[in-house]
Parts: sequence; C-alpha cells; structure tokens
Amino acid sequence: MRHATAAVLQRVTAVAACSPQALASSPMSLVVQKFGGTSVADAERIRAVADEVARTRRAGTNVVVVVSAMGKTTDDLLGLALRVSATRPPRELDMLLTAGERISMALMCMALADRDVPAASFTGSQAGIVTDDVHTKARIVEVRADRIRRALAEGKVPVVAGFQGVSTANDVTTLGRGGSDTTAVALAVALEADACEIFTDVTGVFTADPRVVPAARKIGRLSFEEMLEISATGGKVLALRSVEFARNHGVPLQVRSSFTWEPGTWVTKEDPGMEQPIVSAITSDADEAKITVTGVPDRPGIAAALFRSLADRMVNVDMIVQNVSQQGNADISFTVPASDLEASVATTRAVATELGKADVTADSGIGRVSLVGAGMRTHPGVTATMFEALAKADINIEMISTSAIRVSCVVRAAAVEDAVRVLHEAFGLADAP
Amino acid sequence: MRHATAAVLQRVTAVAACSPQALASSPMSLVVQKFGGTSVADAERIRAVADEVARTRRAGTNVVVVVSAMGKTTDDLLGLALRVSATRPPRELDMLLTAGERISMALMCMALADRDVPAASFTGSQAGIVTDDVHTKARIVEVRADRIRRALAEGKVPVVAGFQGVSTANDVTTLGRGGSDTTAVALAVALEADACEIFTDVTGVFTADPRVVPAARKIGRLSFEEMLEISATGGKVLALRSVEFARNHGVPLQVRSSFTWEPGTWVTKEDPGMEQPIVSAITSDADEAKITVTGVPDRPGIAAALFRSLADRMVNVDMIVQNVSQQGNADISFTVPASDLEASVATTRAVATELGKADVTADSGIGRVSLVGAGMRTHPGVTATMFEALAKADINIEMISTSAIRVSCVVRAAAVEDAVRVLHEAFGLADAP
Repeated sequence: MRHATAAVLQRVTAVAACSPQALASSPMSLVVQKFGGTSVADAERIRAVADEVARTRRAGTNVVVVVSAMGKTTDDLLGLALRVSATRPPRELDMLLTAGERISMALMCMALADRDVPAASFTGSQAGIVTDDVHTKARIVEVRADRIRRALAEGKVPVVAGFQGVSTANDVTTLGRGGSDTTAVALAVALEADACEIFTDVTGVFTADPRVVPAARKIGRLSFEEMLEISATGGKVLALRSVEFARNHGVPLQVRSSFTWEPGTWVTKEDPGMEQPIVSAITSDADEAKITVTGVPDRPGIAAALFRSLADRMVNVDMIVQNVSQQGNADISFTVPASDLEASVATTRAVATELGKADVTADSGIGRVSLVGAGMRTHPGVTATMFEALAKADINIEMISTSAIRVSCVVRAAAVEDAVRVLHEAFGLADAP
Repeated sequence: MRHATAAVLQRVTAVAACSPQALASSPMSLVVQKFGGTSVADAERIRAVADEVARTRRAGTNVVVVVSAMGKTTDDLLGLALRVSATRPPRELDMLLTAGERISMALMCMALADRDVPAASFTGSQAGIVTDDVHTKARIVEVRADRIRRALAEGKVPVVAGFQGVSTANDVTTLGRGGSDTTAVALAVALEADACEIFTDVTGVFTADPRVVPAARKIGRLSFEEMLEISATGGKVLALRSVEFARNHGVPLQVRSSFTWEPGTWVTKEDPGMEQPIVSAITSDADEAKITVTGVPDRPGIAAALFRSLADRMVNVDMIVQNVSQQGNADISFTVPASDLEASVATTRAVATELGKADVTADSGIGRVSLVGAGMRTHPGVTATMFEALAKADINIEMISTSAIRVSCVVRAAAVEDAVRVLHEAFGLADAP
C-alpha cells in the first residue's frame, strides 16, 4: 500500500511552492483537516480518522482537525426541535445544533489520546471564531486563534468544532450551510496553514456526477474560479462560501475521501504558466424554476424594480435573459431555486400589476446544465460545440447564460441527465487530460 | 383542579418568612426550578415543564430554570465514549457530556417561546458557574451570575445548563453526581432566590421507600440536618452535596414531582419554636460491606494508621466500631461502599501485616438501616425502641452507630427490607404527624 501521508506531504509541498504560504516560512508544515458528518458517523469512522491524523502527525506535519456533527445528528436535533416547538427561536436553534460538534470533537480527542496523540477539543467560541449575531447563518468577522496557537505550541492536535462560533454579544452562533468547511478555511487562513484538506465521502471533484456519467473522471487540480463556478452550478462537494474564502486568502484546498484516503482534487490559484483544460467539468441542477414576464414596457428601470423586489425577499435569482419583442415590449425570463418559486411568482405578479399589461408565467419543469473550464477563455468554439451536441441529441435550449469560464443552458428537467452525458462525451472528459 | 401555582406561592411565602431571604427584600419573588432527566425526558415532558414555568411566571413569580440532560442522554454519550476510546481523558469526557444539557435547555427555551414566555438558554460558562479544574467532579468556586441577572432584568426566564461549569483555565467542566441540584442551589444562593425547587419523578421525601413500605407517607417538612442524614444513609432523592450547600446558605429547598405538580417536601432551617417529629424517616442501604480486623494490639495510633491508608485510597469509610477484647487486643469493624470492598480489604491486609498477628475478614452480605429525626435529640428512648422492635422481629444487630439525630444498625442484607418495615410500624410513621 502506498503511504498516504508521504503522498500528502508531496502534494502539500508541490502546492505550497505556488502559494503564498511557502513551507520555508515555518519550521514544520501545518495542515487543517476537516472531517464531515459521514467521516465521523460512528465509533469506527472516528477511530479511522484518528488513525489518519496520527499518521500525518508522525510523518512530521502539524494538524488542526475540524469536525462536523456525527452523521445524522444535526437532522435528529432538528427533528427534536420540531417535535417540541412551533416557534424555534434562532438563538436557541443555534444552542441546540452546536451540541452535535461538541460530541464528535470530544470523541475524536479521546480516540487520538488512545493513539498517544495529545489532543484538545475547542468549541467555536474557545477557538476564537467570532461572528456577527445573525443566528443560524452567522458570518465570521474575526478569528482569534490564540488558544489554538497555544495548543499547537504545546505539541497538541487542536480539534475544533466546525459550523459554530460566538457572536460579539457572547451568544452561540452557527454558520449555516457549508459552515464546517468555512470554519476549516478560516482557521487555515488565521494559522497560515500550508493547506486545508476537506475530507468527505467522495474521492474528489469529478468531471460530472458519476451516478449520471459512469465514465466521469476525478479531476486532479482546479483553479479557485473553476471550483466557484462548479459549486455555483450544482457541484455539491464544496460550499461556495468556503471556496470564496479560500480564494480570497490563497489557501490551497484539497477535497479527499476519508474512506479511501487516496489523493483527491486540489483547488488552488491558477498557474499562469500551465495550459488549462478547455472544459474541466459538466455540472447540473434540476432544482431550478423559470419565471417569464411578457409584455413589459421597454423603458429603463423596470428590470431594476423587479429584481430589487426579489432581492428584498431574499430570493437568489440565478440566470436572467431579456429580449425586446417586435411590438416594442420586452420579455424577461429568469430562474430561481425551485423552493423560492411561489414567493417569487407572487412578488413578480405584484410588480407586473403595477406595470399594467405585463403577463407572468411560471415553469417548474426546467433544469440547468453547465460547462466549466478555465481554458474556455482562450477557446471561442466551446459554446458552439455545446449547442451542436445538444441539438444533435434533440435537446432544446430554453435559456443561455455565460461567464468567462462557464456556459449554462436551461433545458427541460427531464433532459438534464441526457444533456450531461452528451456534453461529457462531446468534450472527451472521460479521457485523461 | 387545585391551582398549583397559587399553592407554590403560599408555600414560598410561608417558608420565606422563616428564612433570611424574606420576600420583602425583592419587589417580585424569585424561584429557581430544577428539572431532572426524567422531567425533560422527551418532547412531551419538555412541553409539560414549559406549561408549569409559564403558569408560575403568570402568577407573578420570576423563574430561573435549571435543566439536566434529557432522560438517558448522559448514559448514551458515555456509551459512545466507551465504544470510541479506551483512555477517555477527563477534559474530553466533560466536553462530551455537557452536550446533553445544551440540548435540553435549548428545547426548553423553544417550548417557552411557544408559550409567549421570553427565555434564553445559558451554558454553565455563560451562567458564570466557575469551578476548579478537577474534570468530571469539579467544585464550584464562584458564581458570576451577571448575565442571568441581566436576563431577569429584561423580563426573561433564564434556562441554565445544570451539572456544568467553566474552570478558571477556561475549560468546560462537570460537577459530578448530583451536579444539577448543586447548580440550582448555587444559583439560588447567588441570586438570593426565595426558594429552590428540585423537580423529579417522585412527589417528595417519604418516611420510607414506598416500594418497601407501601404505607410510607410523604413528609411535608424536614430540617437541613435531617435531609443530610437521609441523603447520607440511602435516601436518593437529593444529593448530599446540594443539601449541604443549601444549608450553608439557608436556601429553602422543595422536592417535588414534575408529573403531578403537587406540593412536595420542604427542606428548611429548623424552626426552634416548633415541635419536631421524633423520627422523620427510615432509610436503608444494601450496597455496604463490612471489614473486621481482629487481634489488633491495643495501643495508640493503630486505628489512625489504618484509616489514613484507606483515606489515601479515596475509600469512604462509613461506620466504625472498636472494642477491646479480654485478651487485651482490639477488634475493629467498619463498613465501606460495596464497590470499594476489594481495594479496602487489600489496604487493610497490608496494614494488618505490619501489625503482625492481626486477622482481616470481609463480609459483603450486610446492609444498613437508619432512623432519622430531629426530635430524637430530646427523646432518649428512641434507640431502645429501635432495638426492641428489631429483636422482636428476630433481626440481629451487628453494628450500631449514632449521631444526634440518627441511629444506624448494620444487619444481614437479606433482613434490611424487613427491618425497614418493622421500624416504620414501630414508630407509627404511616400516621399523619
């Protein structure tokens, strides 16, 4: 068996060379390892993770561990709250849910102690994860990692609760979706770690969802920008927010499996000296819905009024397409998360009523398929190839939107998986780069 | 249905009149209500407790709630620790177990919010329960209840995690057995509450264990000293430690049921103007063992050497009896908790070996039955009545020990329940006082 830790170090070194946190700046390298819920789901999994952390330490790398709650703990606690209360004040919901990481981090320290690795657990508060006071989706405002630094200096492995922090009012907060990844990246930034490894139940980021495309290939390396587009268009491996955080501070990320421990996918700064693959991945999202407003008077300010109203209702509008029809009226189509459809239609109707004769239709039967690739910037034929491939498969494109490194098409929801397979084939993603 | 809250207030008033915390000292009365694990075992129980707290508040009494972990949560968490780790460092065990109260207190606040009672949960640390750093059995060194006072001033019901605190080193600690009761009493002292109510799954303190003596009667009122003797000799309702704390600070306690909400047993300062019942309760403990050392040279310092050795091994010696035999040698018998028997015998043998010819025998087949009553001090016939009753029932007394308000006899373990019934009958405890 190949020695996993040596492999990690090789990769850390390789990446650190092109990152601001050069290994030379510290006498011993430091890595933040984050383990998600499935990675610490039961006693056996916790012991397996402790084995890996012990191996990494013995190979000479300092480790800060960040853990999520065990398996379905958070769902179970939410279920309890639903059975007890109809109101569930956010402050108390945060107090409740933060019990989850407390359990996994204490157990992890015990398992490390069994392996003669001195460890100490720290709550979000003890780890200095200071947030604003927006309960259930707080944002980190500062990381005061003094206790973590002290624990490292004492030769300990700090085990930190992911997903949680303490507000400036000294209340317990949670960071919302993807919160544990954000904790890990924020600590990696504060501690100037050489890398942040996100352990999960998949072996990395794939060229497409392997359940849809069996030939999908694990990607060895992605730029932050590509990973952002992948997360934003349906890739569920990394939360958008933690990728943004890592990009802003240049912390190399690795997405890896805590079941196989094999090398995963590195997400790093783009290397200008290296040729980028034209298309890195195909993503898709079937949880979208489309709203179309027709007969909008074509004068300035109307789109602004509509999207301001939606933003005020916290609706995350994704794609927007506007065309002027022959009658001088504009048609506006946009997509929203399916869960926001009802509220969005109501808001849109209210705005349309003010406009007089505008007509609003909703369509929840759509999905989106996207191509992501940094090399796209210098290869103008990508969009044409995409449209040709979809046309050949008789898949109708309803909306199109593009960024410098992404092309997204709205198609019928029922055609999404076919579209992913067709595009994966058309761009030859199954073949090694 | 009799209105429970009005009854509580009557009793609070009645008791406060004879306590240093007179109601007159605060514009609104304040009670600390502690709910044990069975009282918050599931969603339904939590809602029932919230109903009661809401009633108490609406009747004009301020409430601070202290909760234990739900039902078997603590045992479940310990089970997890056993499955994960062989070493289980105490600091991490404390971090793990304190997840339990976090869950129950957050849920309690949610249930209170449903009832339009503003509430806020506080961990031991947030509530200012400062302890020493002896993990798993920390002692409270200070209560800095500023946040609790502020929450009360804001019209909120503070819901505090029992059993937990924060060490002066800023680590999470637990208070060991009976910890939640101790939290409740300590908060009642710090907040100068009018009373501390300990809600549990029994309706109060009984004249004997009702499972052994069906005619046993609930006691309306006990002195702190009686309650201490009852807790020390087998009564399991209140932890000795919390009773001591309450006595030292003169906080009236009430033991009550969270299932029937009926008036329970008050534990207060002795009222010198009131006649005390001669015997208040019969207690028993079958988890004792006896060690006898025979042929000990009768010279000074030998008992001291023996009991110092046992104390050094943290053995809690209970009763000690020494007699000088006709040969000029002494026989010493003493009882220890059954769980400490093996270690105690080893220690005793080691000391006996140094003494030369002393002989050590162990007997795990014993039990202890005790009479407790403050009126005993002025009624010298109690001991004689006790011995006569046991003799008439053919129960042999192996050891006797007395305090001012207690008489304990060691008998065969198999005779303990009979002894309790015989004594309950002999002192007419089934009849109202």
